[in-house]
Amino acid sequence: MKPFINDDFLLQTNTARELFSGHARKMPIIDFHNHLNPQEIYEDRCYDNIAQVWLGGDHYKWRAMRANGIPEQLITGDGQPYEKFLAWADTVQNCIGNPLYHWTHLELKRYFDIDETLSPDTAKDIWDICNRKLRSPQYSVRNLLNMQNVKVLCTTDDPVDDLIWHKKLVQEQSDFQVLPTFRPGNALDIEKDYFPSYVACLGSVSQSDVSSLDGLLEALKKRLDFFISVGCRVTDHSLEDSFYLPASYETANGLYQKRLTGVALSSEAAAMYRGFLLTELGREYARRGLIMQLHIGALRNNSSRMFEKMGADTGFDSLNDFNYAPQLSALLNAMDSTDELPKTILYYLNPKDVDMLAAMAGNYQGNSTGIRGKIQLGSAWWFCDHKRGMERQMDALSDVGLISRFVGMLTDSRSFLSFPRHEYFRRILCSKLGTWVENGEYPKDMAYLGKLTEDICYYNAKNYFNL
Amino acid sequence: MKPFINDDFLLQTNTARELFSGHARKMPIIDFHNHLNPQEIYEDRCYDNIAQVWLGGDHYKWRAMRANGIPEQLITGDGQPYEKFLAWADTVQNCIGNPLYHWTHLELKRYFDIDETLSPDTAKDIWDICNRKLRSPQYSVRNLLNMQNVKVLCTTDDPVDDLIWHKKLVQEQSDFQVLPTFRPGNALDIEKDYFPSYVACLGSVSQSDVSSLDGLLEALKKRLDFFISVGCRVTDHSLEDSFYLPASYETANGLYQKRLTGVALSSEAAAMYRGFLLTELGREYARRGLIMQLHIGALRNNSSRMFEKMGADTGFDSLNDFNYAPQLSALLNAMDSTDELPKTILYYLNPKDVDMLAAMAGNYQGNSTGIRGKIQLGSAWWFCDHKRGMERQMDALSDVGLISRFVGMLTDSRSFLSFPRHEYFRRILCSKLGTWVENGEYPKDMAYLGKLTEDICYYNAKNYFNL
Amino acid sequence: MKPFINDDFLLQTNTARELFSGHARKMPIIDFHNHLNPQEIYEDRCYDNIAQVWLGGDHYKWRAMRANGIPEQLITGDGQPYEKFLAWADTVQNCIGNPLYHWTHLELKRYFDIDETLSPDTAKDIWDICNRKLRSPQYSVRNLLNMQNVKVLCTTDDPVDDLIWHKKLVQEQSDFQVLPTFRPGNALDIEKDYFPSYVACLGSVSQSDVSSLDGLLEALKKRLDFFISVGCRVTDHSLEDSFYLPASYETANGLYQKRLTGVALSSEAAAMYRGFLLTELGREYARRGLIMQLHIGALRNNSSRMFEKMGADTGFDSLNDFNYAPQLSALLNAMDSTDELPKTILYYLNPKDVDMLAAMAGNYQGNSTGIRGKIQLGSAWWFCDHKRGMERQMDALSDVGLISRFVGMLTDSRSFLSFPRHEYFRRILCSKLGTWVENGEYPKDMAYLGKLTEDICYYNAKNYFNL
Repeated sequence: MKPFINDDFLLQTNTARELFSGHARKMPIIDFHNHLNPQEIYEDRCYDNIAQVWLGGDHYKWRAMRANGIPEQLITGDGQPYEKFLAWADTVQNCIGNPLYHWTHLELKRYFDIDETLSPDTAKDIWDICNRKLRSPQYSVRNLLNMQNVKVLCTTDDPVDDLIWHKKLVQEQSDFQVLPTFRPGNALDIEKDYFPSYVACLGSVSQSDVSSLDGLLEALKKRLDFFISVGCRVTDHSLEDSFYLPASYETANGLYQKRLTGVALSSEAAAMYRGFLLTELGREYARRGLIMQLHIGALRNNSSRMFEKMGADTGFDSLNDFNYAPQLSALLNAMDSTDELPKTILYYLNPKDVDMLAAMAGNYQGNSTGIRGKIQLGSAWWFCDHKRGMERQMDALSDVGLISRFVGMLTDSRSFLSFPRHEYFRRILCSKLGTWVENGEYPKDMAYLGKLTEDICYYNAKNYFNL
Repeated sequence: MKPFINDDFLLQTNTARELFSGHARKMPIIDFHNHLNPQEIYEDRCYDNIAQVWLGGDHYKWRAMRANGIPEQLITGDGQPYEKFLAWADTVQNCIGNPLYHWTHLELKRYFDIDETLSPDTAKDIWDICNRKLRSPQYSVRNLLNMQNVKVLCTTDDPVDDLIWHKKLVQEQSDFQVLPTFRPGNALDIEKDYFPSYVACLGSVSQSDVSSLDGLLEALKKRLDFFISVGCRVTDHSLEDSFYLPASYETANGLYQKRLTGVALSSEAAAMYRGFLLTELGREYARRGLIMQLHIGALRNNSSRMFEKMGADTGFDSLNDFNYAPQLSALLNAMDSTDELPKTILYYLNPKDVDMLAAMAGNYQGNSTGIRGKIQLGSAWWFCDHKRGMERQMDALSDVGLISRFVGMLTDSRSFLSFPRHEYFRRILCSKLGTWVENGEYPKDMAYLGKLTEDICYYNAKNYFNL
Repeated sequence: MKPFINDDFLLQTNTARELFSGHARKMPIIDFHNHLNPQEIYEDRCYDNIAQVWLGGDHYKWRAMRANGIPEQLITGDGQPYEKFLAWADTVQNCIGNPLYHWTHLELKRYFDIDETLSPDTAKDIWDICNRKLRSPQYSVRNLLNMQNVKVLCTTDDPVDDLIWHKKLVQEQSDFQVLPTFRPGNALDIEKDYFPSYVACLGSVSQSDVSSLDGLLEALKKRLDFFISVGCRVTDHSLEDSFYLPASYETANGLYQKRLTGVALSSEAAAMYRGFLLTELGREYARRGLIMQLHIGALRNNSSRMFEKMGADTGFDSLNDFNYAPQLSALLNAMDSTDELPKTILYYLNPKDVDMLAAMAGNYQGNSTGIRGKIQLGSAWWFCDHKRGMERQMDALSDVGLISRFVGMLTDSRSFLSFPRHEYFRRILCSKLGTWVENGEYPKDMAYLGKLTEDICYYNAKNYFNL
């Protein structure tokens, strides 16, 4: 019997197999959005056991374990590492149809060369093999990245970050680049309690007077230029609920100064401030040739009980269902109206928005000189990054846009073992292209299709991010 | 030529056929939500003709007949039974792609052993065969249930109901259990004209003073305990438009008392009252180990002209498209924040909500000791209970949750002939599992898959409802 | 190797091939909604080159070219026709998965008998062949229509239009009918700057006193009767954002008269006016046996910069995501409540609305005497008119309604070369029917299925529009 992860995994047609093995498989990885820790890369951390790397911070797995009835003690509690691993082995066997089943076995195969599927029966063997390997220097973080042919990594960083690890990494000779991403969310989230103190910190770090909005912008521009000096190519923003209402500088500055006195703002006022600042930041990105990423639609910290116990990003987030076409149009138009809209990637979290967003992207493509795929429908994200979710993103993009200009996959991950998700994406992509061809929906022009595959896996991102 | 309903109906792969014939087919039925009449079960009613049982109350068929241009007289009017049946025979032939085509022929095959497909040409023969059988005692309501191996039925009942038929049924020795469901909708729908008189009735039935909200809650708790004494395991609530805004007891009680004086409440005030009462009821369910069902998104009585003529539930309902992620999160969190969230089943009516709801369920799974599949994404409901709708529910559940812990199908039906819908669901389930396996998305581990199939068809519900 | 457009294009099963070649292929075309220019038909225009007809006004192609990084000069600018064509040849090769790829090659094959696929390599040959043919009288507009067996065309016309070309066409003997469509959008869009002057124009054209809403209605009724005298069977309305709030005549008239004084109305006031007028117009349509088309959900002119340069309909529109089930129900009910709801076709632009709309249609089917398919879920429109979009529309319609009563396809096009889109639709339809049959979801009753196919391609529309 063929092992579960075999050459043909997810590839149903000969065309798909040929595109994957001849083209997709050999492309390097540009992972232009993730949450990896640059310090661990610089220090080339080694792990002690597979529970640490798999269950130490992966809220996807935690959610599955909770649904499977595993007590919290064996998920995020003080349970023994092997007991936690065993609880995961029981859970993953019950993950039929869920991407965790595929990711887990891709990781076992690609990093540890394990063909057995994980279940309570095989858990002890797999635990031993993985841990033996993990403890060897060949399984340090940098070697894990090299195993997967990762060439570029974009981490996610706050404007106040000193980027000390990125700077150290830049000074080394290395097989890959680790670039910072400018994510000014804390400066945008004017409703948050910590906003005034955050702004003060930003002023201090940038040696700017942030008592006016002009000053805040100046501070952010200084940090942006600092980020660029360390290699930053990309920015990122999480839009949740109301994110744009038109506002003049005077209005936005008035709201900003009011907030700094400690007064709370209405949701409408926050949207005015946020809309103004997003627009101004976007223009700065455009001037500097940076990419603007917009991640839209998270609904976070739904269990206040668990938030109090465990804090954010612990598996209690889901997706919102608000409608945002008009305000997104207004935000993009505010930048486009002066021809200062940067290259932008639009990510949806609620699948109901995929067709709206795919069509919206088409409103702002190109400019007087032409840019290929200027506005991108981002790859399926978070609750959408499974097989059907990726297929849906590719379908929606193709239905009303050009998949040929798509910049492709990123992991959005916190784990150094998650890079086989690029392989997962590439197999799904090749499978889709193969099906179109073998159903007679596109000619079997393998020269073109091979190039197209390589473009989506690598070259489109390389050109788009100017790497 | 194979008959239309044959062993392989909807089963495209060998794995699917093996799972269905070896496992799904032989599982008993737990129908944990329907609208059957317990009196007809107790009295073991017999039908006179197939028009009576098929066309007497089935608004799915009525809607199809209206779309097919059948005059109302032959749908709900005073037309002759055979004329109505003939109109249905013409309509069903034109139901290609609609689940009515499949349900009709599954019912003809499973209850009446008829292989012919229904059309005007075959109508007379089928009419005669069905009616001859229906009039025999072997086709009484209880025998119809036994034919389909129904073990548990949960009807839908108002808190003021005396449950007289359930009590009589409990006292009998029987092959199946008929359990009441606590559906306090009339106490929640504070906007309705009949609210004050309903509340008065509830006070009288429960011998409670319902002049304050505390009193109303007391009355509902008494009725809840009475329902439990007759076997109740499940509760049910239809949420339509605004259903949760936070409110203190004082606020909610003030609104309640204002409403009892005859004053109408704003939609916002109604959401405060409803949110408060839903939260309190949920906590009571949690204390008693009951399941809370939330059916979200109906838009009812859209034709006021037909509502005046025919009343509710006559085929003029459809689905709303309001967004409700934040308020649903707030409602669930209100119960969860004190660790008093009961086991809950979330049902969507608008398919656009399926992914949001599947992800939302994941926010409240488990607890300190762990519960398997505590929060369920309910089976495809009403306008979604067709082949594609069921597939979509299974996909969404698998994408971000565990289909392995799914409690599965219920009929939600008013007809004693509707139980082959469980077979329909099971064939679709086995087909999906089979396709995953044969596409290499899960190993062909038939021991595990057989158990999984039996779990989803029967054992998960048995455990979840503590039967 | 088979040419790309071959007999089996999109037809995967024998049943599909048999239904297409034996039935769908030979049906004439009734194109009951498009934006063709009747003057060009009357004058039987000839084109000079394929760039003119393909790239002169097709915003689908323009959007794809912009996404492909073609400079605007070669899209809508003053570039040379061949250079533009070459830019399109490069773009279309990159349209894998997009309907433009299929449409382009269907048009090349059906009108020009070209088997080669279009790419920069083949562009010169194809340019020469197309242009040589286009310049011959056999490729005049009327001959293009005859090549595709078009029997009825419904253009889109403003109530003030004198229909001079339609009148001239009526007086001729011809193989096809060119009928006007009554589209009173300018009288409904009370927010627009031009509203008062438009209303004045309507008053003048109809010789009516439009100083009151009664007068406006009178004017519209006169124009409606004039349209009918020239053959009008269909009306059309684009609903964008808020379109219905209940209002009495007095309220609506007050708002109308206020607006005529130059005052701007709130969005709520506009919805009252629009709701009142739509209801009244619908009743007039019902009295005259006309069809009411509602196109719901466009979000237009998203780039104000490009709107200023190029005006409307230049490729900067997309789709809105507002929720409208309750207001649509209220609008339809307002007409239905007095049994004056006309035959109505509901079109969604946002796919998230498809299931809601399919179910909504079911609320208003039939009447005392029965009408087949009175309320239609319209064919997939604009951003939805691709293969997957058409499949989704057919699925949603079948899931809760009767595809057998569907009036089928229209082009909604501005191009005289777009009629192979009917073939595209028919292949997708036959493919779906074939798949159902070969998967055992409907019996292989070819007599019935052949008739069904012909109904959906032709006869249902012929009967519905009373042609």
